[in-house]
Amino acid sequence: MKEFDIAVIPGDGIGVEVTAIALKVMEKVAAKYAVRLSFTEVLAGGCAIDTYGEPLPASTLETCQNSDAVLLGAVGGPKWDHLGGNQRPEKALLGLRSGLGLYANLRPVKIYDELKGASPLKDSIIEQGVDLLIVRELTGGIYFGERGRTTTDEGYASAFDSEVYNEFEIARIAKNAFEAARLRQKKVTLVDKANILESSRLWREVVAKVAKHYPDVELNYMYVDNAAMQLVKNPAQFDVIVTSNMFGDILSDEASMITGSIGMLASSSVRQDSFGMYEPIHGSAPDIAGKDLANPLAQILSAAMLFEYSLGMGEAARDIENAVESVLKQGYRTGDIWTEGTEKVGTTRMGELVLAAL
Amino acid sequence: MKEFDIAVIPGDGIGVEVTAIALKVMEKVAAKYAVRLSFTEVLAGGCAIDTYGEPLPASTLETCQNSDAVLLGAVGGPKWDHLGGNQRPEKALLGLRSGLGLYANLRPVKIYDELKGASPLKDSIIEQGVDLLIVRELTGGIYFGERGRTTTDEGYASAFDSEVYNEFEIARIAKNAFEAARLRQKKVTLVDKANILESSRLWREVVAKVAKHYPDVELNYMYVDNAAMQLVKNPAQFDVIVTSNMFGDILSDEASMITGSIGMLASSSVRQDSFGMYEPIHGSAPDIAGKDLANPLAQILSAAMLFEYSLGMGEAARDIENAVESVLKQGYRTGDIWTEGTEKVGTTRMGELVLAAL
Ligand SMILES: CC(C)[C@H](C(=O)O)[C@@H](O)C(=O)O
Ligand SMILES: CC(C)[C@H](C(=O)O)[C@@H](O)C(=O)O
Repeated sequence: MKEFDIAVIPGDGIGVEVTAIALKVMEKVAAKYAVRLSFTEVLAGGCAIDTYGEPLPASTLETCQNSDAVLLGAVGGPKWDHLGGNQRPEKALLGLRSGLGLYANLRPVKIYDELKGASPLKDSIIEQGVDLLIVRELTGGIYFGERGRTTTDEGYASAFDSEVYNEFEIARIAKNAFEAARLRQKKVTLVDKANILESSRLWREVVAKVAKHYPDVELNYMYVDNAAMQLVKNPAQFDVIVTSNMFGDILSDEASMITGSIGMLASSSVRQDSFGMYEPIHGSAPDIAGKDLANPLAQILSAAMLFEYSLGMGEAARDIENAVESVLKQGYRTGDIWTEGTEKVGTTRMGELVLAAL
Repeated sequence: MKEFDIAVIPGDGIGVEVTAIALKVMEKVAAKYAVRLSFTEVLAGGCAIDTYGEPLPASTLETCQNSDAVLLGAVGGPKWDHLGGNQRPEKALLGLRSGLGLYANLRPVKIYDELKGASPLKDSIIEQGVDLLIVRELTGGIYFGERGRTTTDEGYASAFDSEVYNEFEIARIAKNAFEAARLRQKKVTLVDKANILESSRLWREVVAKVAKHYPDVELNYMYVDNAAMQLVKNPAQFDVIVTSNMFGDILSDEASMITGSIGMLASSSVRQDSFGMYEPIHGSAPDIAGKDLANPLAQILSAAMLFEYSLGMGEAARDIENAVESVLKQGYRTGDIWTEGTEKVGTTRMGELVLAAL
């Protein structure tokens, strides 16, 4: 019997609830395909600060490093917002990304037919459907460049941050984008600000070089300000968007929001090998934590991605996705995606429904 | 009779057409209020590259410096896209901004009742109205920081750009935001990425200090990724957004697009004194240039802003705004904002209608 080690970081707030449900789903699917999953739960984020005094204990990182994949809930909350830079829950995310070498964040953004009503965009805009993938560079750029304070000649306090990218970093993420596009609509849009940034100009050069190895994939370029507009105006034009860490942060959140159902969206953070970290894109939502209100579907779909990309079990992933779709078709909704005429259910019940549909 | 010197930069593409019309509107209003406007037309952008071999000739900058205000059309187009960094039409914009010291870009984003149908957002989202002001820092940050290329130890080409802000720059733009908020809904949202960027943390410190002088204005903070979502989810929550050059570039374009009527939006770029540069937020739209298809209303409304802020003629500005609204109420629309049941008119005719309504 095949066995996989999964590091599990429920994290804070609703991360705990949705992860518990996703684990049940994973166990059921594992049983069906006769693989054994060994889960090791570890702390990161606010709960780790409370327990260990630091957002990412070395032991947590180590457990993750020794596993086949990581399932992450959500970290952070107002409880820890007063803490200084290095003691904030978000540091756990950055530490996991860099510590595990997860340089590519893949965020599929899709509007489910059943949930079109939840989109803030007019029907006329989304009638062609929205199904795009944002490939965000995750371990470079201004997130990890030098930063600090200085004083100007006039005596003013000054602060700086550096956006830095090298050929190697750009080429490897570009490959992720082109490979993904091959399995989709074969179109890659590089989003940058090449009319201003030198780093963007390097991105254009390197991505154009990588594109030569993918003659079957179309490459086009778009400035980030225009991309922010086009996502609202005509999201159907996009297939795969590849971009820097900072622009990806902004655009992937904007793109998620146009679906109107953030509680449905999963993401993976990966590297060259099959290892990856999987998490819902929603936050820890402390205001609804522990109230059986959270939508567990994004985390369940994150688990599906984990099966597909880290365990090589595409069929298991399809099973989970189909179960989720069938529950939606049956008309069940958590509060965040509820609309007139559908049946509102809580976190636990939604989990049971997916398990039953499996 | 009062006399004002106005530098006029029609620029490229539809910039030329819409500016010609705005000048007529300005002349009519000037006559009503018995002021004399002396227009000096100068070249910048693509047309300046064609004529002088450079996007911003020194003589253009000088004419602007010696004027009371600048009215700018739009610059750029695919014709000049192949040119290198310093020879691109956009360089004219950057040169004007820094050369004239225009550190604050004010971009009002408003959905006209008559044009709600044009918004890509659902009626339920915009029913509370959208009326916000983006105050974007315009002469600092990563747009003007050091940038360049290096080589990594492994021999990879590497590129960097620096985001740099000092206290002075942040405090002065913050003042613009708070002053503007006082005349509006008294709410300022600082958009940044303070969980990552040191420069954002300095923004928070300095803006909080400035806020002390405006106890009547509410200040809150939002991360840029969240702001990109909230603009789509609930734009009515915003009054004044103040942010860095780069984030402002992205968010102001996104915010403009949610109105669905970019051909209606004006902007001003200002400094401490009354001098300013006024321009529509739309581009040069070379595809429709010279076809009498462009919407001249954004440029007409830019002229209104020029009267108000640089010439101290608020009443004249109101006249222009009322004329534009009345033409919309009468049901006239250029193609970009046309919907079933309204009357489509060209650029020239739209200009005549506004002149008639004045
Ligand atoms: C919490 C924050 C540091 C993080 C980021 O900016 O990467 C988050 O916004 C995300 O996108 O995962
Ligand atoms: C053309 C470009 C350099 C410019 C900018 O990024 O500032 C434009 O996008 C704008 O917003 O005026």
